[in-house]
Amino acid sequence: MPEQERTVAGEEAIVQGYLAPLAEGFAGAFGLRDDCALLSPPAGHELVLTTDAVAEGVHFLPGEAPEDIGWKALAVNVSDLVAKGATPLVYLMSLAFPAAPAADGLAGLARGLAAAQASFGISLAGGDTDRRPGPFAITIAALGTVPTGKMVRRGTARVGDRLVVSGTLGDAVLGLELRRRQTRAQAWGLAAGEAASLVACSLRPQPPLALIEPLRAFAHAAMDISDGLAKDLGRMAEASGVAARVSVSALPLSAAAARALAADPSLVAEIVTGGEDYQVLAAVAPSDVAAFLAAAAARGIVLTEIGEIQAGTGVRIEDRDGRPLALARAGWDHF
Amino acid sequence: MPEQERTVAGEEAIVQGYLAPLAEGFAGAFGLRDDCALLSPPAGHELVLTTDAVAEGVHFLPGEAPEDIGWKALAVNVSDLVAKGATPLVYLMSLAFPAAPAADGLAGLARGLAAAQASFGISLAGGDTDRRPGPFAITIAALGTVPTGKMVRRGTARVGDRLVVSGTLGDAVLGLELRRRQTRAQAWGLAAGEAASLVACSLRPQPPLALIEPLRAFAHAAMDISDGLAKDLGRMAEASGVAARVSVSALPLSAAAARALAADPSLVAEIVTGGEDYQVLAAVAPSDVAAFLAAAAARGIVLTEIGEIQAGTGVRIEDRDGRPLALARAGWDHF
Repeated sequence: MPEQERTVAGEEAIVQGYLAPLAEGFAGAFGLRDDCALLSPPAGHELVLTTDAVAEGVHFLPGEAPEDIGWKALAVNVSDLVAKGATPLVYLMSLAFPAAPAADGLAGLARGLAAAQASFGISLAGGDTDRRPGPFAITIAALGTVPTGKMVRRGTARVGDRLVVSGTLGDAVLGLELRRRQTRAQAWGLAAGEAASLVACSLRPQPPLALIEPLRAFAHAAMDISDGLAKDLGRMAEASGVAARVSVSALPLSAAAARALAADPSLVAEIVTGGEDYQVLAAVAPSDVAAFLAAAAARGIVLTEIGEIQAGTGVRIEDRDGRPLALARAGWDHF
Repeated sequence: MPEQERTVAGEEAIVQGYLAPLAEGFAGAFGLRDDCALLSPPAGHELVLTTDAVAEGVHFLPGEAPEDIGWKALAVNVSDLVAKGATPLVYLMSLAFPAAPAADGLAGLARGLAAAQASFGISLAGGDTDRRPGPFAITIAALGTVPTGKMVRRGTARVGDRLVVSGTLGDAVLGLELRRRQTRAQAWGLAAGEAASLVACSLRPQPPLALIEPLRAFAHAAMDISDGLAKDLGRMAEASGVAARVSVSALPLSAAAARALAADPSLVAEIVTGGEDYQVLAAVAPSDVAAFLAAAAARGIVLTEIGEIQAGTGVRIEDRDGRPLALARAGWDHF
């Protein structure tokens, strides 16, 4: 943001001028004019809790639109709730600014958060605003609700379960690559609309909220695959004490990702390990797969069966010839 | 920490090696082996939510012991819960490391958190671990419980209420000053034990947990005074639509702080505005003051009446001659 832009000085001006409107939907936020928020848990429900941070240069690129940053900060948290079968409820947000923020940027951030809130059905409950060196960062803690006993765990997949994923895989990581190297769009033979759709997936993740009810009804285990299918499936298998097998040829791809992969077959590693797919991986009894897919389809969510849970340990990702795919790394790790 | 120290690489090694033991007291954390935590709210209670971050160079000094950093990160959040009459329950923690952390430092951080957990009766429920440029930072979101309807608000002080604070004021900010300029101890005429006690207050805040029940029983309004008495009292008065008056001569001081103030009367501004006092300010009906003080005393907490709520607006802090104290700033603001 240009230096000469108007900045917002003072925590009070930031909180009351830009953030308090995000808390209007939740009475327990007290208009962000108290030290804590108050939540009356709905009867017959439990609370599901998660926290995730996004920071400039790590989770989003410098120069990205503040609207998109706000959207993504909330979406990555909501994605975890959705994958557990939890309905988003409220969130706390801690903002770390390296300097007094520009008024335009702060307004854009609030617009992106407001759009995400409306899309996900969640409200701001409270927060914290700091100035410190380092990248601009947003840390969110999100709370959702499930009927008591209905949270979908990671470690409860069973031998014989079918593995199912929502949406399409790899779009976000390919979109990120296009933003870094625009010439790739031509190399991959993408139409302008296809390239734009991949970029949009990387900027504005869309967790499949309509899948919450079907997950509660049918999934033995589930999690989002934001660190990449290979790594996150490995986590599910390990936590469940089972093995897993998936076929690359079964992975659901958008038309744009399929075209890119045809042009550059090495992209399969990016699609399987790149992460940033805020989609859900679920393990479902074979007898429930059809009903699960139908329930999701009735709510506008496409599910695809990609493999199965087996006895043993480890994850086998098979290429189109049934051989194990060679991967340099399993998925995203900060360290 | 020296460069040659052993570091801990990999989120899994950090989480399972050092953080998972902190979650053993809370079954809904699932050993930090799921994507979210699960909380079954206790019947007849509401949840109180808060979030606060601490970052190196802002909230703690470079070179501070990891044990103290861990303690403080949790204490500053618990302080907000206590001031609302909420019993600490669980917390989520997001860690931002600029590089792979040293094993010794990480172990120290976990020890400090474990000690604070035991002291405050709170457990780790989940978290997030990132690597990013900038200072080491810990963002915590803490949840506490209150019997339904019993949260103590900030904006509900009433005209005529007496203002009461817990503990002593200014110790932490004087301790911080001593850590920055050790020669001050001599200039202030402090014994070695006095200087050490001030330093300890700045490193290990001790929110008055025993005050939770008396606050629920007697306080019309309350908040912690971590941004300084002047600023936080201003917030209470503004939120309540009232004015407030306090006397500097009534402020409770430790022997060490009283000695420093006698040696350098200008320190009164630091004591009133410096912040870092994780003590509670409460507004109580005149007829309840004696019972409130007695209930706190029975639990080992010293309370002191320092002023009163009046009709009007604004905060008047009177010096020993009854004149308004001249303050260059009201309190801590990051911007």
